[in-house]
Amino acid sequence: MLNQQEKTFTARFRGVLTARQSLLCVGLDPEMEKLPAGLPRTAHGLVRFCQEIIAATASFAAAFKINFAFFEALGNLGWSALAEVAAALPATAIRIADAKRGDIANSARLYAHAVLQELPFDAVTVNPYLGEDAALPFLENPAQGAFFLCRTSNPGSGLIQHFPAGPAGSAATPLYLHIAEQVARWNGKNNAGLVVGATHPAELLKVREKCPHLPLLIPGVGAQGGDLESAVRVGATAAGDLAVINASRAILYADYSRNFAEAAARQAEALRNQMRAGLQIKA
Amino acid sequence: MLNQQEKTFTARFRGVLTARQSLLCVGLDPEMEKLPAGLPRTAHGLVRFCQEIIAATASFAAAFKINFAFFEALGNLGWSALAEVAAALPATAIRIADAKRGDIANSARLYAHAVLQELPFDAVTVNPYLGEDAALPFLENPAQGAFFLCRTSNPGSGLIQHFPAGPAGSAATPLYLHIAEQVARWNGKNNAGLVVGATHPAELLKVREKCPHLPLLIPGVGAQGGDLESAVRVGATAAGDLAVINASRAILYADYSRNFAEAAARQAEALRNQMRAGLQIKA
Repeated sequence: MLNQQEKTFTARFRGVLTARQSLLCVGLDPEMEKLPAGLPRTAHGLVRFCQEIIAATASFAAAFKINFAFFEALGNLGWSALAEVAAALPATAIRIADAKRGDIANSARLYAHAVLQELPFDAVTVNPYLGEDAALPFLENPAQGAFFLCRTSNPGSGLIQHFPAGPAGSAATPLYLHIAEQVARWNGKNNAGLVVGATHPAELLKVREKCPHLPLLIPGVGAQGGDLESAVRVGATAAGDLAVINASRAILYADYSRNFAEAAARQAEALRNQMRAGLQIKA
Repeated sequence: MLNQQEKTFTARFRGVLTARQSLLCVGLDPEMEKLPAGLPRTAHGLVRFCQEIIAATASFAAAFKINFAFFEALGNLGWSALAEVAAALPATAIRIADAKRGDIANSARLYAHAVLQELPFDAVTVNPYLGEDAALPFLENPAQGAFFLCRTSNPGSGLIQHFPAGPAGSAATPLYLHIAEQVARWNGKNNAGLVVGATHPAELLKVREKCPHLPLLIPGVGAQGGDLESAVRVGATAAGDLAVINASRAILYADYSRNFAEAAARQAEALRNQMRAGLQIKA
């Protein structure tokens, strides 16, 4: 359990972004095959890689996000590797469990316990398909938050998330905006946020207009093709304190040599600065 | 990796149900606080409980379903406990990982690897909100399947899954039927199924009419209030070979004494027989 002086998750999120003048979320999606020179291709090597990336980028990041899939794929060793990496995240940053959980009430409570109590995370990504009673267990503690999938960055998501309108659009409200409305209703404790991909800037704008007070987690810049500047311009509020923009591969794999940590730091700094510049254009 | 003599998951699913004349899926949702007398309240005790339940009910069950939430909540010890219980599942039954995973392509592939290759499962439950490219990695091996959440058993699901129609209904196609249509399109390898709660018999009927060839996983009978007979009548095909009906608490907690395994066996047998009777009424 966290003790954030009774602050709500959203209040703390704003505070961290403002204090650090950063919108950068460093995404930890470590792949065994891509570990840099000098690290063993074992669970232990993977943990050390993440620890060094965290240490090198901590002064530029507002948030860190651990993608559970990359650890679960290691089998039995994955869960303890994940716990070790989570323990290395600085408590001064927003620590996000990218676990995309979601189940009905009893199970949801246990998933929330696993991620927000057994592990030291401040927030978790959640799939909203099961509705309010499945969502609320992740929002029970006001000091911890949940980012609900709204408009995901992948190419095949439109046929579901734009339902019933086609991707070409129609007068009907698309599902992702209905989800955004629902999540705003679930936000009674000021700790709910949304995941909206940078690959869909027009939809990002609509979500931001509909939910001016919700924190956004924005993946999809870099390798996935989303544009960083438009993500900042559209996703962040004028005060620049309600959105983090995730970068994973660009930072983790900035260099495959023994200098990977230094290269990651330079890349994180550059991305943070680009995001700052984006905010200044906006202001 | 499984070697099911090149049979597709759906063909094998039908074969197991027919050979066993059973629609029963035994759901393993073990809670530490509910362990029967004589078992230590530790991860080890929980594993032994599951192993004894599996052994006692194996001759009546067509399928077993392990709910990942109950293991992940144990923290570090949970993942190895889950692996031990999964190893105890009989390979002659359909072994379902109730993990409700779902993420974009790269991560989805890793989740699928974790559940279908690192662990000995035949199928996994998947959340369809992210669309086709996120779904297909779970359907890559025709011998293994995925059950996509369609109409879940919990009370709060209607506001999302009936969108854009209200729960009272309207002329518009509701989301859950759109999902059913999409999943039928993703079924090119004959290994996709749907999760539809027994708590919504009218919707179960609509899904079955729209998807006469898809395996169904039907939770929600017993403690959640779904009616077993209507689940059989509506969910199963006339041949009685395309739906399993899950029972968890009714079997696991049939008795809290040292005789829990025997009580679980009797309860599993009774449920299997009730399901058989339901099929006979239907025929």
